[in-house]
Amino acid sequence: MITPTTSPFGLLSRPAPLGFERSASQRHRHLFGVDDLGDDELLALTRPCFSPPPATRAPWGTMSLLFDQPSVRTAAGFAASGLRVGLVPMGVNARGHCARADVALEDEVHQLSYISDCVVVRSGEPLDADALRHCDAPVINAGDGGHEHPTQALIDLAALRMLGLEDQRVTLMGNLRDHRTQHSLARVLRRLGVSVVLLSPPGMGMPARFVDGLATVETDDPALADEVLASSDFIYLTPTRWWSTPEHHGGEAFKLDLERARRVLRPQARVLHPFPRTGELDVSVDASPYNGYHRQLALANGVRARLLAHLLGRGP
Amino acid sequence: MITPTTSPFGLLSRPAPLGFERSASQRHRHLFGVDDLGDDELLALTRPCFSPPPATRAPWGTMSLLFDQPSVRTAAGFAASGLRVGLVPMGVNARGHCARADVALEDEVHQLSYISDCVVVRSGEPLDADALRHCDAPVINAGDGGHEHPTQALIDLAALRMLGLEDQRVTLMGNLRDHRTQHSLARVLRRLGVSVVLLSPPGMGMPARFVDGLATVETDDPALADEVLASSDFIYLTPTRWWSTPEHHGGEAFKLDLERARRVLRPQARVLHPFPRTGELDVSVDASPYNGYHRQLALANGVRARLLAHLLGRGP
Amino acid sequence: MITPTTSPFGLLSRPAPLGFERSASQRHRHLFGVDDLGDDELLALTRPCFSPPPATRAPWGTMSLLFDQPSVRTAAGFAASGLRVGLVPMGVNARGHCARADVALEDEVHQLSYISDCVVVRSGEPLDADALRHCDAPVINAGDGGHEHPTQALIDLAALRMLGLEDQRVTLMGNLRDHRTQHSLARVLRRLGVSVVLLSPPGMGMPARFVDGLATVETDDPALADEVLASSDFIYLTPTRWWSTPEHHGGEAFKLDLERARRVLRPQARVLHPFPRTGELDVSVDASPYNGYHRQLALANGVRARLLAHLLGRGP
Repeated sequence: MITPTTSPFGLLSRPAPLGFERSASQRHRHLFGVDDLGDDELLALTRPCFSPPPATRAPWGTMSLLFDQPSVRTAAGFAASGLRVGLVPMGVNARGHCARADVALEDEVHQLSYISDCVVVRSGEPLDADALRHCDAPVINAGDGGHEHPTQALIDLAALRMLGLEDQRVTLMGNLRDHRTQHSLARVLRRLGVSVVLLSPPGMGMPARFVDGLATVETDDPALADEVLASSDFIYLTPTRWWSTPEHHGGEAFKLDLERARRVLRPQARVLHPFPRTGELDVSVDASPYNGYHRQLALANGVRARLLAHLLGRGP
Repeated sequence: MITPTTSPFGLLSRPAPLGFERSASQRHRHLFGVDDLGDDELLALTRPCFSPPPATRAPWGTMSLLFDQPSVRTAAGFAASGLRVGLVPMGVNARGHCARADVALEDEVHQLSYISDCVVVRSGEPLDADALRHCDAPVINAGDGGHEHPTQALIDLAALRMLGLEDQRVTLMGNLRDHRTQHSLARVLRRLGVSVVLLSPPGMGMPARFVDGLATVETDDPALADEVLASSDFIYLTPTRWWSTPEHHGGEAFKLDLERARRVLRPQARVLHPFPRTGELDVSVDASPYNGYHRQLALANGVRARLLAHLLGRGP
Repeated sequence: MITPTTSPFGLLSRPAPLGFERSASQRHRHLFGVDDLGDDELLALTRPCFSPPPATRAPWGTMSLLFDQPSVRTAAGFAASGLRVGLVPMGVNARGHCARADVALEDEVHQLSYISDCVVVRSGEPLDADALRHCDAPVINAGDGGHEHPTQALIDLAALRMLGLEDQRVTLMGNLRDHRTQHSLARVLRRLGVSVVLLSPPGMGMPARFVDGLATVETDDPALADEVLASSDFIYLTPTRWWSTPEHHGGEAFKLDLERARRVLRPQARVLHPFPRTGELDVSVDASPYNGYHRQLALANGVRARLLAHLLGRGP
């Protein structure tokens, strides 16, 4: 009953290249964590630069943004930096129906890599880097659960270097247990030999799997926190709160407003913050010289554009 | 114990421009409400025009769309008009996790303004314009709660002028209390001295803070509503329903189908509607001469492109 | 009391073209189902091709993606293929507030067609094609409920032809009742006279309204399924699961891993799958010669770019 039928339409009987396919032999660079970049690369991607911004390239491809968590700055920043190297952004949406609960995010990313020229992923859980090594386009981690956020660390390092990092002490302050930007920046600063102090509420210290051996202060005593801040050149502040964690730890010791900044900080000290802020950084600091976080924002697109050009092998 | 370490990597010790930064001295024009535009600007942005549409500019930057409420026409319209002036659109998503409940939308917008060349915002609550004046890129209100929707008013005015507004009477009809497009258009028409009648169900009149002193009819009597419509040249109709308001007021007095239009309206009368429609405007009107709302849609991109070129200081 | 006022602003009293309007007389081609394309078009759009990919066109317009269901590959694929023909993608969002529950999706699409140069729609319910015929831009179905997914069928056919479809037998396997990609592909293959077998769990057969008269096996017996697979050149596999349907039918008979593939399939057989996968296709098959599904992904952008160029009347 079931017999092949010869088509009258002259269908090809032999495989043939379609011409639209990308070369399958190409290997791609990905960025899952800061250790995917060598020291030379870290420094080149974050170096201060006097040249004018290069002209935006004519669009030649697309960047897919697969974001499982909401994103404002990161999504917009990747869009803007992608455009500089010729990629048009497209947000795609993996969740929302129960049938998707069984789908592995890494499988989605792998498939996206066939139809996009770059895939940027934000996920609620750490990415399985091994499952993504053979993707057909560069894959970039835009924050994976409580793991890493490597492009934010590049931006943070660029801002620190521009503000002057030599012989300076950086205090990482907040919930260091959960905040992925803290994890990535701590690893980067340690690799570069920068003096770092970890300041967190008790029980919210930096897990040893990210970095260990750094000076550590765990306290919720504002006076002790003040002492640490008073000897810091840079304070990298993040909320003690985390995505779905309603707990508020640390209290006043981990909140900074202009009054406290003036009372405690060195005159040349600068505060950095990756945003969003949820109460730990008062807007009264914005108009003060302590504000280093708007410098981060101003540098974000340039740093990410460099990274994209580097991973794609095409100059911006 | 905590001592600074000298880095072996030759990190710069002095601040230096990165080259990727935007000039911080630039001040930007924003559009929070129609009164942010002068009369000359209102008229220039909505003037009928005989010239062919200008060629789309090569993309040079990005437009971030931070939308807290769903949007179909407005989001697509900003994307299309942005492209005409060289901006590639990117939708970003502020909500969805409880940690974001504490984040001020204005803070998000301000940060976005550092990494985007234009920020378009739709929110469920009125925007705090004062908190946004110093943003680093033009910020445009795409509908903020029950407050204003100024770009829709520009489109509406452009359609009215193209259809011929001189010596004409415009009836604003529906829930004038809550619908932001009604608020913005009423202010614009009053400023231009256009004859306006406000027709709403009882209790859904235009709040005096938006406009007062206009002829007002509050009724749910279809016969009385018919009288108002019979003396109108333009009917600007919106639903009596509003986002999360399940109430249906007004009943048949605030619904228009072709039968009623033929029975009541002047032959030259035109109906405008900003969409979406939820029952108050029957599709039977679409193919009739009373349909002025598809003219609004046809003009939307051109008007918004003019506005963007004006705010950005770059011609389309 | 209500009298017209003459405006001092010299508003035009006569209709006049704004210049920004699109010509209203233009009729557009849409793609709601595979039968909207003739046989010649089907074959031209899916023909193997030896030429290099054409250069991406400079952006001249926008493509709106109105997706009521989550989408990863399809959204990213339309974005990438749109860019090739000069369209910049914009995702818009119709749902999320109760006031939208009353809005007809077709009405939204129709309005979008005035402000976008192409509208791509994914919906949870079948589209009403008749309500969309007069849209002002090409409308493309990107999957409508349990109905059709015509662009996926084009990609599937292109992959089958490239792998060699002449005198080959294709088995469509899985939940053929609900999966729209199966419906579209079955219609296409039947029109082209390809030998097709339908293999589904009992009660999940292909509805006759999509295609009838094809060889059909409904079973959950793995041995019987093996027999069908052993005589197949291509297996087009989809999950037995469907969006909100938690039921799992078919069991082992409808799951394929490398062990089963080696035990049952012909050496030259190829497996195709439209993704996402939810357990029915094991990753162990990926690195084997049976993997035909990554070929589908590699062809997706090229096929959709051809389609867009065809519908828009502009070459890629």
